[in-house]
Amino acid sequence: MLTAEAKGVFPIAPTPFHPDGRVDEASIDRLIAAYLSAGATGLTVLGIMGEAAKLEPEESLAIARRFIRGMGALPVIVGVSAPGFAAMRALARTVMDEGAAGVMIAPPPALRTDEQITGYYRQAVEAIGADIPFVIQDYPLTLTVQMTPAVIRQIVTDNPSCVMLKHEDWPGLEKISTLRAFQAQGSLRPISILIGNGGLFLDFELERGVDGAMTGYAFPELLVDVVRLQQAGRRDEAHDLFDAHLPLLRYEQQPGVGLAVRKYVLMRRGIIASDSQRKPGAALSARAQAEVDYLLARLARIDRRALAKAA
Amino acid sequence: MLTAEAKGVFPIAPTPFHPDGRVDEASIDRLIAAYLSAGATGLTVLGIMGEAAKLEPEESLAIARRFIRGMGALPVIVGVSAPGFAAMRALARTVMDEGAAGVMIAPPPALRTDEQITGYYRQAVEAIGADIPFVIQDYPLTLTVQMTPAVIRQIVTDNPSCVMLKHEDWPGLEKISTLRAFQAQGSLRPISILIGNGGLFLDFELERGVDGAMTGYAFPELLVDVVRLQQAGRRDEAHDLFDAHLPLLRYEQQPGVGLAVRKYVLMRRGIIASDSQRKPGAALSARAQAEVDYLLARLARIDRRALAKAA
Amino acid sequence: MLTAEAKGVFPIAPTPFHPDGRVDEASIDRLIAAYLSAGATGLTVLGIMGEAAKLEPEESLAIARRFIRGMGALPVIVGVSAPGFAAMRALARTVMDEGAAGVMIAPPPALRTDEQITGYYRQAVEAIGADIPFVIQDYPLTLTVQMTPAVIRQIVTDNPSCVMLKHEDWPGLEKISTLRAFQAQGSLRPISILIGNGGLFLDFELERGVDGAMTGYAFPELLVDVVRLQQAGRRDEAHDLFDAHLPLLRYEQQPGVGLAVRKYVLMRRGIIASDSQRKPGAALSARAQAEVDYLLARLARIDRRALAKAA
Amino acid sequence: MLTAEAKGVFPIAPTPFHPDGRVDEASIDRLIAAYLSAGATGLTVLGIMGEAAKLEPEESLAIARRFIRGMGALPVIVGVSAPGFAAMRALARTVMDEGAAGVMIAPPPALRTDEQITGYYRQAVEAIGADIPFVIQDYPLTLTVQMTPAVIRQIVTDNPSCVMLKHEDWPGLEKISTLRAFQAQGSLRPISILIGNGGLFLDFELERGVDGAMTGYAFPELLVDVVRLQQAGRRDEAHDLFDAHLPLLRYEQQPGVGLAVRKYVLMRRGIIASDSQRKPGAALSARAQAEVDYLLARLARIDRRALAKAA
Repeated sequence: MLTAEAKGVFPIAPTPFHPDGRVDEASIDRLIAAYLSAGATGLTVLGIMGEAAKLEPEESLAIARRFIRGMGALPVIVGVSAPGFAAMRALARTVMDEGAAGVMIAPPPALRTDEQITGYYRQAVEAIGADIPFVIQDYPLTLTVQMTPAVIRQIVTDNPSCVMLKHEDWPGLEKISTLRAFQAQGSLRPISILIGNGGLFLDFELERGVDGAMTGYAFPELLVDVVRLQQAGRRDEAHDLFDAHLPLLRYEQQPGVGLAVRKYVLMRRGIIASDSQRKPGAALSARAQAEVDYLLARLARIDRRALAKAA
Repeated sequence: MLTAEAKGVFPIAPTPFHPDGRVDEASIDRLIAAYLSAGATGLTVLGIMGEAAKLEPEESLAIARRFIRGMGALPVIVGVSAPGFAAMRALARTVMDEGAAGVMIAPPPALRTDEQITGYYRQAVEAIGADIPFVIQDYPLTLTVQMTPAVIRQIVTDNPSCVMLKHEDWPGLEKISTLRAFQAQGSLRPISILIGNGGLFLDFELERGVDGAMTGYAFPELLVDVVRLQQAGRRDEAHDLFDAHLPLLRYEQQPGVGLAVRKYVLMRRGIIASDSQRKPGAALSARAQAEVDYLLARLARIDRRALAKAA
Repeated sequence: MLTAEAKGVFPIAPTPFHPDGRVDEASIDRLIAAYLSAGATGLTVLGIMGEAAKLEPEESLAIARRFIRGMGALPVIVGVSAPGFAAMRALARTVMDEGAAGVMIAPPPALRTDEQITGYYRQAVEAIGADIPFVIQDYPLTLTVQMTPAVIRQIVTDNPSCVMLKHEDWPGLEKISTLRAFQAQGSLRPISILIGNGGLFLDFELERGVDGAMTGYAFPELLVDVVRLQQAGRRDEAHDLFDAHLPLLRYEQQPGVGLAVRKYVLMRRGIIASDSQRKPGAALSARAQAEVDYLLARLARIDRRALAKAA
Repeated sequence: MLTAEAKGVFPIAPTPFHPDGRVDEASIDRLIAAYLSAGATGLTVLGIMGEAAKLEPEESLAIARRFIRGMGALPVIVGVSAPGFAAMRALARTVMDEGAAGVMIAPPPALRTDEQITGYYRQAVEAIGADIPFVIQDYPLTLTVQMTPAVIRQIVTDNPSCVMLKHEDWPGLEKISTLRAFQAQGSLRPISILIGNGGLFLDFELERGVDGAMTGYAFPELLVDVVRLQQAGRRDEAHDLFDAHLPLLRYEQQPGVGLAVRKYVLMRRGIIASDSQRKPGAALSARAQAEVDYLLARLARIDRRALAKAA
């Protein structure tokens, strides 16, 4: 079960498809191997970048099950955001029965006031049950919901089953400092904070006190290494490595296009067989592919793991 | 099958629940009887006001099936809006197999540009199949998507299976005139236009040339009568009757609260057994109930159908 | 100076223009005469419906001055919402020097969280000075900012110079009850609450405890009469009169189009010389004019003040 | 006068203030010197990052005049976005009289449909006059208005006085390619495209065919160098230099916080005397200042211009 002590890197897994749209199980297995090899401490599936909304219920369940089995003892978090609580409850209870460690809940875009947001999480917990550990997803850029530190604190206080924050506000550095100050003052109990937003500020977010990363950058080993170096106090080395990846990481962190970049790189690396997305989902243009290839070639001068394995 | 010749009144059916949250089939049957008795020419189920997002897939299907059976030969439209095309396709194909006459598709709130909107409908039709007649839902107040008359024309032109527009833009009178002018000029093929937005402008919308109403006002017979009177050229009578209902109709057309008012009146009328909503859904305060009672009592002076049957 | 004891009707004054776009001072004077004759207890100028954003600074000042002079001892509130605090301060200080009773401040659309909203009002008061009585405008439909009752209470508590709420949330009846309950409990000090939103719920809003109306319906005498009847406990008469006006009032309360309707009716009544708006601003179509004429004719059967004076 | 042949770098100038909020003319003069020394080919003032909304009209004019005088023969573009056309016209005509080369117009956030956007620009040009060259600002992240390439083409076609696009959509690479393809096909006349969005994709945007940059990164010489290197075909060198700056550039490109970072770096470089902003405007925390200092120190290892001049 997921706890507030969770640390390290929980990659956001994409859902690999065959060019005809079927789920590609063999690529799921290679993704699992890659995450384990990279040193991931957990995994998150069926998030926004997992194309969760494009899956039928049985597919979602089968994908979650395969990732859970594959990750063995490592905790797997399943995204259960849904337009209604009935569907959210059904998926949450089922994946927990299948061995998930916890679930992640994003607020629906219509929420505006502080009361609406805290009320939504209370109702969601009532729906899924207070026995399921859950993660708050705080991603205003995509979800359009803005949570202040005080609202996050209220959600955590209202719901003992909240154990983690996926922090991806932008800008977000001061928010981390504020939340950690709340904890230092004793007004917020301990929770795990993993960062997202493509990792664009991972370097400084770690210095602000987060516990790790939960994002889908196509080199999970970069995330693992930067977390490890920072935790070891090797600040300059952490920044050197991060900066080498930043041009590509920045290119991947483009709204809408990002998943196409990510899948293309994972395919170039030989980890997934195809970069296909289900509709609606734009493929990368030939021009963009060439740009990514150029970035990979430049990155490989410093980090040889960027040498593509595939044709 | 739904065609572009559809006319009259297609009430938006609520989904009746028991106080414990279970679907109330007996109330569904009474709703059907009330719609038939009122002179409805069709029905729409699983729309926003049908709490569609709060239902599990099997429930949605069972509800749609019961309404379809109950309405006999009259066409039933099923709302199939979903966050992903896989779920939309699954529901659409299934309800058509069950005898639905067509489906209604609302645009997802993130759509902004004209191209995004027309592109979305092309992809939706590709997903559900070009053999299923569908209805465009144009409701910016709730959906936040703004479609110009030219965009609606483009959707209709792109997709031969589009047979109806649920018009609920606000303001919307000029939009109707523009669409009908497109048709007079020959740049838009014939489609049925039924109005929504709670019927707040039904009086004049009929004079602007729409074919009827698709909304859930708790007195469907009022909608039927106003349509009938206007089509018979009895303009003043149509307005007299409409105006008598306007204070209540306006009270019902409040964002968020409207469904609670509607269910309360349907319960007061003895049509549904309980005004319960599934969460999240606010009950009517005692104060608001008293206001609705007062409006019903005032209405009953002119339209005796407003005399409540229930305690 | 405006105080928390303000009551009655503060019409929202439009800004009359000549067809060539110049400000029409003679029409301003007739508007003043009409408001005084109708029994207004105050006036609000340079609001959204006063086309404030289309005026140059000197024009705004001249218009405010003319209304202030014309209303004599009655309080005039001036809208000072502006994209920056420098312009807000300049206008606020100047109009107060000219004899305004207070100012009205709408929140900028970008505000989302409770903290952003309360912070904005603190900064606005710091900018204009704590000696100027001000009105909160709570109009989510147009401004997209959602303020909970708790946020309004916080603004009132933070800023002693806050004396009034322009309440135009929709739905808004429960909000009024909540605010008045705060006051009964002693957690919110007394403030005046005047309602807006075109007066669409004026009938019940008065019963929920508001002090009057601040809106621009083209028959300010209707607003005055309904307030007077309700305050005299003549509930049924208040509703009878309100309901007679509701078809027109509802027609006027259309986003975007509303001002054109309002100016057209004021012109038909002989109060302003032209219904011209500055750009961007749509004129009423011939079809819409005929609809308004029809509504006026119907209204005149019950309320003879609706007989048009002009050609 | 600004023409469609404009190229190079037009920095976005901040407005320097003294700590007490007064405009700091001496810092304006140093900014001008820095821009000239860096090789800027023009300048843009009174944009969003120029805190234009916080200035009083006379201040805006004085600032524009000082920058125009200081830049000598180089073209200065003045941001004239305003909530109403009267204010827009007044500022535009005045600054052109003072020697501005053109104006920049951002769409107001409420615009949604293609027609609304193209209609707005037609009305804006009618307001300011067709003799003033203008720049479209396409910045959805901040302005929330989404313009497709077809909409931009329509604006350019409708308005011969449109000479430039400030491109800052994100993602935006394909948009550039589409616009340049329109021109190759002959469906769009030549216009200058300068990129913004903090320069986050300047490296590839130049390769996609833009004419330069219009953004406010605190090292305008970096923008100039990258443009120059790319134009000289020295691709790898351009990327090497860009990548060295990317960690800082990324840090500066944070919504809301960005201006504070930018002003802090300009102050550290001795170009402006204070990093003060007018309210509302957040100062950089001590923690954030230390992070920027660290980034500057790291950058200085590669680009010695990052060695701070000031204490």
